[in-house]
Amino acid sequence: MTIESTTVRKAKFVVIEGLEGAGKSSAIALVRDFIEKHTGQAPVCTREPGGTPLAEQMRDLVKVANESDPLCDEAECLIFYAARAQLVANVIKPSLAEGKWVLGDRHNLSSLAYQGGGRGLMPLVSSISEATLKGFKPDLTLYLDIDPKLGLARAANRGALDRIEQQELAFFNRTRATFLSYADNDDSIMIIDASQSMAAVHKDIIAVLQDQAW
Amino acid sequence: MTIESTTVRKAKFVVIEGLEGAGKSSAIALVRDFIEKHTGQAPVCTREPGGTPLAEQMRDLVKVANESDPLCDEAECLIFYAARAQLVANVIKPSLAEGKWVLGDRHNLSSLAYQGGGRGLMPLVSSISEATLKGFKPDLTLYLDIDPKLGLARAANRGALDRIEQQELAFFNRTRATFLSYADNDDSIMIIDASQSMAAVHKDIIAVLQDQAW
Repeated sequence: MTIESTTVRKAKFVVIEGLEGAGKSSAIALVRDFIEKHTGQAPVCTREPGGTPLAEQMRDLVKVANESDPLCDEAECLIFYAARAQLVANVIKPSLAEGKWVLGDRHNLSSLAYQGGGRGLMPLVSSISEATLKGFKPDLTLYLDIDPKLGLARAANRGALDRIEQQELAFFNRTRATFLSYADNDDSIMIIDASQSMAAVHKDIIAVLQDQAW
Repeated sequence: MTIESTTVRKAKFVVIEGLEGAGKSSAIALVRDFIEKHTGQAPVCTREPGGTPLAEQMRDLVKVANESDPLCDEAECLIFYAARAQLVANVIKPSLAEGKWVLGDRHNLSSLAYQGGGRGLMPLVSSISEATLKGFKPDLTLYLDIDPKLGLARAANRGALDRIEQQELAFFNRTRATFLSYADNDDSIMIIDASQSMAAVHKDIIAVLQDQAW
């Protein structure tokens, strides 16, 4: 008891993942508040792709469709990893090293699920993931699971869908299956049923956070 | 004889590589003219990184230094490959499929030499190269070899050096050694002694081109 309470906690990297319309934004606000109460300090919040000036420029490259020069699958995947490498090197690792918690709106699991599973680029994505991140990963990932039909209906109510959100339903079904498959094989990825009411989702998230050995 | 002369020639992908100040620009003009005379049609000319609207935006990301958000090595490497994937998918492969020759100002060997050799990122670069290009490579590469001291003195006379050109001399020595090592192990890469007079360099280039079984 004494040892644990006097030990300086190692800062953690927590990530929220989920399909469009799964409720990531409100989950992030909830987890942000939890971390602030738990550690006495607000976490460094990141979003991917993006989160540094250069990574935000990379984000623009993949978010805006260019009809005369359609982004090929390999380039999309490589840009996502370039933005991620930049964010890890210049924000996430330095923050953790300074003892600051980091809360991520998406991270590597999104590339594995969307590009690897959704687009069927799995050998490419997993090779680049391993070569780039060299084993670096979040301490905890909350995956907000939702049926793509329900999630996309919610996202459509928010406004126009971007290039990625305009994919066919089968793409999102493959993406969801990949999220679930990774969650099944990694104890640091927790599945939250995001089809529930917001109150029930938030209750489940808090239960997972309180259950961590932090 | 009859079969060869009536067979439609497969279009070729020819690349010029070399350190700063090696004389790439005049070599490209020379090879461009040779291909036009040889095939009756000007080649599609590309430069890397760049060569498509999106790839040119990626080029800007790596060429312009950002002091508050320095580009990490992994991101630089991934951006180069994203631009290359985009160029191969949207320009090089479609051109070759239409029977058009392609003349490249740099290609994959530059990443292997500069990022892999110069920056010491070889496991990362070779992994990404293999995963992205899946064996696609030029039919012929002319590597203009020059001592970095001489090349950089020439480049400095042209004007301001960009972010990559401002690297230390040891970086360029490692890069040159990697270029030479690849050339030694690949019959499709021909070394041209670029320390000679321009007339002598051009004579050597023409000799190599005339020696090809095209």
